[in-house]
Amino acid sequence: MAVYTEVSDEALDGFLKAYDLGQVLSLKGIAGGVENTNYMLHTERGTYILTLYEKRVAEEDLPFFVGLMDHLSNAGFPCPAPIRNRSGNVLGRLCGRPAAMVSFLEGMEVKHPTPEHCYAAGQTMAALHASADGFHIKRKNALDPTGWPELVNEAQSGANNVEPELAKIISDELKFAQDNWPTDIPAGVIHADMFKDNVFFLNGKLSGVIDFYFACNDYLAYDLAIGINAWCFDDKLQFMPEHSAALLAGYGSERTLDQREIDVLPVLCRGAALRFLLTRVNDWLNVPPGALVVPHDPKEFSARLKFHQIAADASTYGAR
Amino acid sequence: MAVYTEVSDEALDGFLKAYDLGQVLSLKGIAGGVENTNYMLHTERGTYILTLYEKRVAEEDLPFFVGLMDHLSNAGFPCPAPIRNRSGNVLGRLCGRPAAMVSFLEGMEVKHPTPEHCYAAGQTMAALHASADGFHIKRKNALDPTGWPELVNEAQSGANNVEPELAKIISDELKFAQDNWPTDIPAGVIHADMFKDNVFFLNGKLSGVIDFYFACNDYLAYDLAIGINAWCFDDKLQFMPEHSAALLAGYGSERTLDQREIDVLPVLCRGAALRFLLTRVNDWLNVPPGALVVPHDPKEFSARLKFHQIAADASTYGAR
Repeated sequence: MAVYTEVSDEALDGFLKAYDLGQVLSLKGIAGGVENTNYMLHTERGTYILTLYEKRVAEEDLPFFVGLMDHLSNAGFPCPAPIRNRSGNVLGRLCGRPAAMVSFLEGMEVKHPTPEHCYAAGQTMAALHASADGFHIKRKNALDPTGWPELVNEAQSGANNVEPELAKIISDELKFAQDNWPTDIPAGVIHADMFKDNVFFLNGKLSGVIDFYFACNDYLAYDLAIGINAWCFDDKLQFMPEHSAALLAGYGSERTLDQREIDVLPVLCRGAALRFLLTRVNDWLNVPPGALVVPHDPKEFSARLKFHQIAADASTYGAR
Repeated sequence: MAVYTEVSDEALDGFLKAYDLGQVLSLKGIAGGVENTNYMLHTERGTYILTLYEKRVAEEDLPFFVGLMDHLSNAGFPCPAPIRNRSGNVLGRLCGRPAAMVSFLEGMEVKHPTPEHCYAAGQTMAALHASADGFHIKRKNALDPTGWPELVNEAQSGANNVEPELAKIISDELKFAQDNWPTDIPAGVIHADMFKDNVFFLNGKLSGVIDFYFACNDYLAYDLAIGINAWCFDDKLQFMPEHSAALLAGYGSERTLDQREIDVLPVLCRGAALRFLLTRVNDWLNVPPGALVVPHDPKEFSARLKFHQIAADASTYGAR
């Protein structure tokens, strides 16, 4: 939750002179979102999200993120559509920060998804993978296994304060991932953060996907592994096999997984759990003074990791 | 800025069953607002603000606050209108907290008001005082001079860490207020917090006033003194006489101040500066761990106080 940068009426008027959105009606800072400052903007023409990119987002990545949303929405994928100014640009500057405006998507997070919600999420994830085809900018996943050793080092000294033995669990799991990570499965653009709060539903139907600020090029099945971690554990951190089977079935209705992807799914699920465990442990251990954000509990992901470690094979997840 | 209480889709659906607002389209937590949790809610019927009252607001005061908005909006005053549920109630419960919904007001805070904005603010303040006539609930101002000794005691030990000599400045000023506070000037319902961020403008015209959670019964001219402190100092804390004269003229265009109110205006301006200085010093000295809100700088009000202390008489403020 955060408004890191306050935008005054004067600054907004200056910024919007470059756009054809009519008169400003209101601007409200939105709580939620760790990385950036987000405002909901009402103008005579409609409702928009105005985002100011703060220092956690690398400026050189912005053409990828905003370009991807533009590419996907042009392909009919339900995501925020960047708004072009009169010069045709989707990126500008406001209050000293890079800034962009996107269309506002109605819909709400579903706190307790049913298998039907998971089916829709899987189907939409496959549609995202297909719709991204032809997008010309590439972005390496900074949080793939080559990025984890640095996070593991950072976490070592404090991890056991989060949970007993966690430092060893993490370093063992890194070794496992390095020894077992696949090298030859289908890759493309993935969302890489398709958690429940980034997927909206209206009237039981999926209405849109937001927050593309972890999107990157990586294995398509890794996105599914993130989705299994995000959608298929209940409030008590128990795995929900029907939800997982539905997520995979939804995905499979749009794109058929090949046998290598299925075989490696447990490894990818362990890796995805480790990736979120690592960033959560480090965020937990490094809450800055005056922080505007309460960090998520890392233990939610050590529990998931332990489940995946004992998964027999991809049939655990309902793959067929 | 704050969302202290997260409202899930399920909790919202349960709450809205009692209302005739149609299908929920979206719910976004709003940053801003120290006391309560605020959401912007889109439904098929329109845009609303949903407020959950957190522990800083006394539950027994809610019928006053919500009732006042209802009374004022029925009288044609531009403020949020509480939404009644099917039973006719404006106060409900959501996620264990008292909750209310009000209509959404378009408009934006003006960061650097002109004298014309101040005239409109003064005029609207007088309209508020008149429109509140006949409102049947009373609420004592908890932050009038009888409430200040407790705040002064609380501030004493740390005040000199905020600014040299501040502890003595504060206790001397309390004594001055106690010796000089009026006892017989016109009273009624006042807003008591009509700062710039609580007054919206659209296209240069005042479109609405929000945040009635300090409203109370007190001297009408004390509201004006708060307004002078809020609207008539620039970013460098220099007094702006044209702005003050315009605020008073706008007020006077709707309600004529009597001679006693004019004579006592410098005392009321000092008191208003002391009141905000005291709460800001105490908020500054008591930032809780994990606070979601960065406190305002108390020195903005010690500077105002020093200006008022040397004001010759009400003519300083442009009263005539």
